[in-house]
Amino acid sequence: MFDGVLARGRVARAVSDEAWLRAMLAAEAALARAQGLPEEVVEAIAGARLDPGELGERAAESGNPVVPLVEALRRLAGPDVHRGATSQDILDTAAMLVVAVALEPLGEDLAAAADAAARLAEEHRATPMIGRTLLQQAVPTTFGLKAAGWAAGLDAARGRLAAFRPAAQLGGPAGTLDGLGTDALARYAAALGLEEPVLPWHTDRTRIAELAGGLGAAAGAIAKPAGDVVLLAQTEVGEVREAAPGGSSSMPHKRNPVAAVSARACARQAPGLVATLLAAMEHEHERAAGAWHAEWAPLRALLVSTGSAAAWLRSCLEGLEVDAGRMHANLGDTPGVDGAVASAAALVDRALAARVQPS
Amino acid sequence: MFDGVLARGRVARAVSDEAWLRAMLAAEAALARAQGLPEEVVEAIAGARLDPGELGERAAESGNPVVPLVEALRRLAGPDVHRGATSQDILDTAAMLVVAVALEPLGEDLAAAADAAARLAEEHRATPMIGRTLLQQAVPTTFGLKAAGWAAGLDAARGRLAAFRPAAQLGGPAGTLDGLGTDALARYAAALGLEEPVLPWHTDRTRIAELAGGLGAAAGAIAKPAGDVVLLAQTEVGEVREAAPGGSSSMPHKRNPVAAVSARACARQAPGLVATLLAAMEHEHERAAGAWHAEWAPLRALLVSTGSAAAWLRSCLEGLEVDAGRMHANLGDTPGVDGAVASAAALVDRALAARVQPS
Amino acid sequence: MFDGVLARGRVARAVSDEAWLRAMLAAEAALARAQGLPEEVVEAIAGARLDPGELGERAAESGNPVVPLVEALRRLAGPDVHRGATSQDILDTAAMLVVAVALEPLGEDLAAAADAAARLAEEHRATPMIGRTLLQQAVPTTFGLKAAGWAAGLDAARGRLAAFRPAAQLGGPAGTLDGLGTDALARYAAALGLEEPVLPWHTDRTRIAELAGGLGAAAGAIAKPAGDVVLLAQTEVGEVREAAPGGSSSMPHKRNPVAAVSARACARQAPGLVATLLAAMEHEHERAAGAWHAEWAPLRALLVSTGSAAAWLRSCLEGLEVDAGRMHANLGDTPGVDGAVASAAALVDRALAARVQPS
Amino acid sequence: MFDGVLARGRVARAVSDEAWLRAMLAAEAALARAQGLPEEVVEAIAGARLDPGELGERAAESGNPVVPLVEALRRLAGPDVHRGATSQDILDTAAMLVVAVALEPLGEDLAAAADAAARLAEEHRATPMIGRTLLQQAVPTTFGLKAAGWAAGLDAARGRLAAFRPAAQLGGPAGTLDGLGTDALARYAAALGLEEPVLPWHTDRTRIAELAGGLGAAAGAIAKPAGDVVLLAQTEVGEVREAAPGGSSSMPHKRNPVAAVSARACARQAPGLVATLLAAMEHEHERAAGAWHAEWAPLRALLVSTGSAAAWLRSCLEGLEVDAGRMHANLGDTPGVDGAVASAAALVDRALAARVQPS
Repeated sequence: MFDGVLARGRVARAVSDEAWLRAMLAAEAALARAQGLPEEVVEAIAGARLDPGELGERAAESGNPVVPLVEALRRLAGPDVHRGATSQDILDTAAMLVVAVALEPLGEDLAAAADAAARLAEEHRATPMIGRTLLQQAVPTTFGLKAAGWAAGLDAARGRLAAFRPAAQLGGPAGTLDGLGTDALARYAAALGLEEPVLPWHTDRTRIAELAGGLGAAAGAIAKPAGDVVLLAQTEVGEVREAAPGGSSSMPHKRNPVAAVSARACARQAPGLVATLLAAMEHEHERAAGAWHAEWAPLRALLVSTGSAAAWLRSCLEGLEVDAGRMHANLGDTPGVDGAVASAAALVDRALAARVQPS
Repeated sequence: MFDGVLARGRVARAVSDEAWLRAMLAAEAALARAQGLPEEVVEAIAGARLDPGELGERAAESGNPVVPLVEALRRLAGPDVHRGATSQDILDTAAMLVVAVALEPLGEDLAAAADAAARLAEEHRATPMIGRTLLQQAVPTTFGLKAAGWAAGLDAARGRLAAFRPAAQLGGPAGTLDGLGTDALARYAAALGLEEPVLPWHTDRTRIAELAGGLGAAAGAIAKPAGDVVLLAQTEVGEVREAAPGGSSSMPHKRNPVAAVSARACARQAPGLVATLLAAMEHEHERAAGAWHAEWAPLRALLVSTGSAAAWLRSCLEGLEVDAGRMHANLGDTPGVDGAVASAAALVDRALAARVQPS
Repeated sequence: MFDGVLARGRVARAVSDEAWLRAMLAAEAALARAQGLPEEVVEAIAGARLDPGELGERAAESGNPVVPLVEALRRLAGPDVHRGATSQDILDTAAMLVVAVALEPLGEDLAAAADAAARLAEEHRATPMIGRTLLQQAVPTTFGLKAAGWAAGLDAARGRLAAFRPAAQLGGPAGTLDGLGTDALARYAAALGLEEPVLPWHTDRTRIAELAGGLGAAAGAIAKPAGDVVLLAQTEVGEVREAAPGGSSSMPHKRNPVAAVSARACARQAPGLVATLLAAMEHEHERAAGAWHAEWAPLRALLVSTGSAAAWLRSCLEGLEVDAGRMHANLGDTPGVDGAVASAAALVDRALAARVQPS
Repeated sequence: MFDGVLARGRVARAVSDEAWLRAMLAAEAALARAQGLPEEVVEAIAGARLDPGELGERAAESGNPVVPLVEALRRLAGPDVHRGATSQDILDTAAMLVVAVALEPLGEDLAAAADAAARLAEEHRATPMIGRTLLQQAVPTTFGLKAAGWAAGLDAARGRLAAFRPAAQLGGPAGTLDGLGTDALARYAAALGLEEPVLPWHTDRTRIAELAGGLGAAAGAIAKPAGDVVLLAQTEVGEVREAAPGGSSSMPHKRNPVAAVSARACARQAPGLVATLLAAMEHEHERAAGAWHAEWAPLRALLVSTGSAAAWLRSCLEGLEVDAGRMHANLGDTPGVDGAVASAAALVDRALAARVQPS
């Protein structure tokens, strides 16, 4: 009912139950291969057709979906499946695989939004407009500089997410690698295209925290331009307009900045979800009694929300219509325009030149 | 995949897309009746068969699912459907209907958990155990007093949720009731079994905040006994055991307190979601540019998580096995048992006598 | 450095170290009296002159400031001080005393802000203005109806806080009242003007959650009108103006709506602090190993922030200048003004009539 | 009253009002120098003696303490002080200077805690203990591996904080550098030892988000070992003991793990504060109407809490007494000890070898 607004774009599919199941099977298959099990076992695992809903339901018995998964796989492929591993090995690894896939469209939408902002910056590097502080008209700037600031925030956020290195998880019940060995860990990680950690990280959740922080920062970097578009699109300001504004159920003629509004709504999910993930970092002993399970929902929701926010902002900025005439009119006879425009335009040039790898 | 653990019980179904759609249709039908439209129009609305997934998808155009809903209903039942109303009238009213339904099983599970705790309190009013402060053994108490404390927290939380009064929403685009009238509002609210508000509350979200606060408190009241069960069930303590403990994928013989662990995991979703709802209270002007949309997901997730936590705790406490012998052994030769037991037992009696309407 | 902005009003003083110390002494004195200790002991406790900074420093040894407090009081008034009690008895009781005092100015500022909104509602019940949804001009309303909505939110929030009943805390180390007795509890609570709880609530934190939820709702109810004032005061909108707008360091001529801006800044502290308090509800066994200590700072900060937000909003609304001419101009030739104004004005009358106990 | 517990260590002083004032003066002095003002002006600024409390109070008029600061400095050093700058230039720069100073002791305490954990890891690389999952005894591990996991989390968190690059802020009222120029920005940043940003970042708060995320992750990395110590120190487990445990007001003989308990309490402040900072990223236009002011308190509180948590954990781990005999006893006749110990010890060696720059 709400996914059209709150789960736009391609991230939602990348974190679906089906995607999680595929990732869990990939982890079990890679483990089997790393342990030198026969190729037919590996293939039986990798090709298993299971129903995520049923696994989810049966997860209630043991508290996680890997227990019924392993039971099903052992029926299919023999008792050596999952040998020496623990549920969290598989689920954490699957989480990292899911994250890696989900960050691709998220990163693309962030990049596209930043590129759109950069194009606006370039085009309007010297388009004068009034600068507003505390929502009061202040001194002149250019629309290009405002857009360059949007791009800077989005680029910074994207850069941090791009630096995230998903790592494999393997350690066995107490994280000792007993019966597994570091060689198996190395092969397992390599087979999955994930980083090999120095230690199992069952209870060291700094990776999750880093990811959460990066997503939270991205959501905030998205909220900034989205908020500006909403404000600039106000009837009384009228300096920008979305390409596909929306009507309302009572006033079909309205031109609501739906993309910016929806981007804001999605972005606002992030801070609370980040807090949930950070608060869940205190894992007891060798594996936590609730804190780990507490990560699953907010991690997924944070990816979806931030991805949706990025997709909305991309739509918003790629089609943004800028009304330079209205900017000029709102500027009125504010003094100091020429100097401010020159200075702002130079800053825009500097910012655009500094952008790394414009995609 | 995770719903078996994180969406236990009956709340998830009560807040499903289907449930939301039914509630939205109920709101539109009540509005039509309140406006005196022909009964066939009312019935056409109430009986409409629509696809929530499709509405959700089309919601992306306008930013909310009521716009496509109204279009579909007008095709079915004529142009007078939704006359004078705004999307938020319908969606907020639907939210309150959904909440009212969802709070029933949630309240029942909370009550059942509290009752189970009260039964434990009664049975073990004088069962001595060591009291523990900062997780160090301190002075004696009884298991009954501990359980009475659980019941007290659960009862308090349930009482607050039971006092929540869902209210109808109706005001039209600017909340003036222009073209609607307070009589229609009264009939609309009455038809839906919702409270009639003094004013439309499109941008006064104190109701949502009250609900959020109540759910957050309930989650915390659940987390307390769940945490205690996890601690008491430790191998080294061994004073309680769940009736249906779970094994692990590597150690099938383990007796993990799955219900308590899962209750904790669910309860820990709440604080961040409450924060999201509180942070979304700043609605601009007559209807918000994002803050309203930002409520939908956390409200639903908060109901599901708290309801799931309650269902898990109910399972945990209804089947809890108490090992009075082990409690006695752990108490060792701690002095002062008799006086402490007498005092604790008296407190238990007082607490049980003070329980209102034991269900 | 930041208190002028973030700790306005009288709440900050009510929660100062000095205030906490006074409350702790009051609790110890009431306990001594409830236990029938000689009046000179009671007076020695009540009149003790201690340095909160020194107690705070010495608190590091035991983890809470009551331990050094009791040592100091026993030197002054003999070994019977604090007999049978535990640190948390005193500190929780002190917290409730501090809260009771702090809620007075907070409630007064909330009430005054609501009254100011109600006066604006009455005065402008029929002052037409454009209603704005998603920050786009929509259909007409009146400024009075907007202000009545502000009052409704503030009244609701105030009502919830006014319903909070601070309770005494007394139970001894394991909460059994062993060596204390329910009679002493009753006398203790009565002497302090606090509610007598059925059970000690050392680890049942639903009271704290209720308070936190009420403060969070109040902050949100404050943020709504503060946000509207900021938006209405925009240069391009110009429909309201604060009585004492502020300049900036670079543009002394600016008329920034400082009170509304500061109210927003204070109100935004609340959601995160509420989350911290809710997340701290899982207290282990008879007294928590960190969760209790984790409450002290956010409870104080939440009171100060919400109180400061209320004080700022009161200043903002009591002096708000409304520009009906500008409202009329912004309305332009929007159709349907007369009907909307009549309907809105009637709603204002209804809302004002429904206000309970206008202070 | 609570600072002994909640503001341990050296960070609190580094973020005091005095420290902020010094940083603001340093920023104004660096600006004056960058603009080529006479050295006596620079020195008059740098050496000004002002009262932060008075500035804070007067900040209420304009909404920030820079306005009265500049007025005072202009009286001292002439009208060219602060030329072309805006309040946020000075306050953001001061924040970065304060952060840079505060991160030093915080980093040192984190490093010392990690080093202590690493020493425990080395010493106990092959000390067998039972591994515990979901707080149930599971399979063997070594205490060294547990401690190595603590070190890994602390090292990761410290590494992220060490990578934070505080940047200067300079842009003038609308962030155009009009009347300032990029040369002045470069000189200003260099003089302060801060990074020169490509653009003014008045409304691009990704830097603040990065810092907040890093501090939140550090708090979580601290909470993990603190929680383990609390659990291991339980009377029934008894495998570790703090060097300076604390008594209670009623039971002076108790040996509470005060340092670990306090570390947890401090660490639990972080998630909510991080959420507040992330939620404040949506800055309107050229400077925000509340979101910026909303950062001041949580940024300071987050630094203090995380720093205090680090200082407590350092104390806890540096003096931790490990009871290998009790570990052996608790292990009982669990099978598979030898293999697990060998595997765990090898992992410890690998982890210690991988530590970068042990301090």
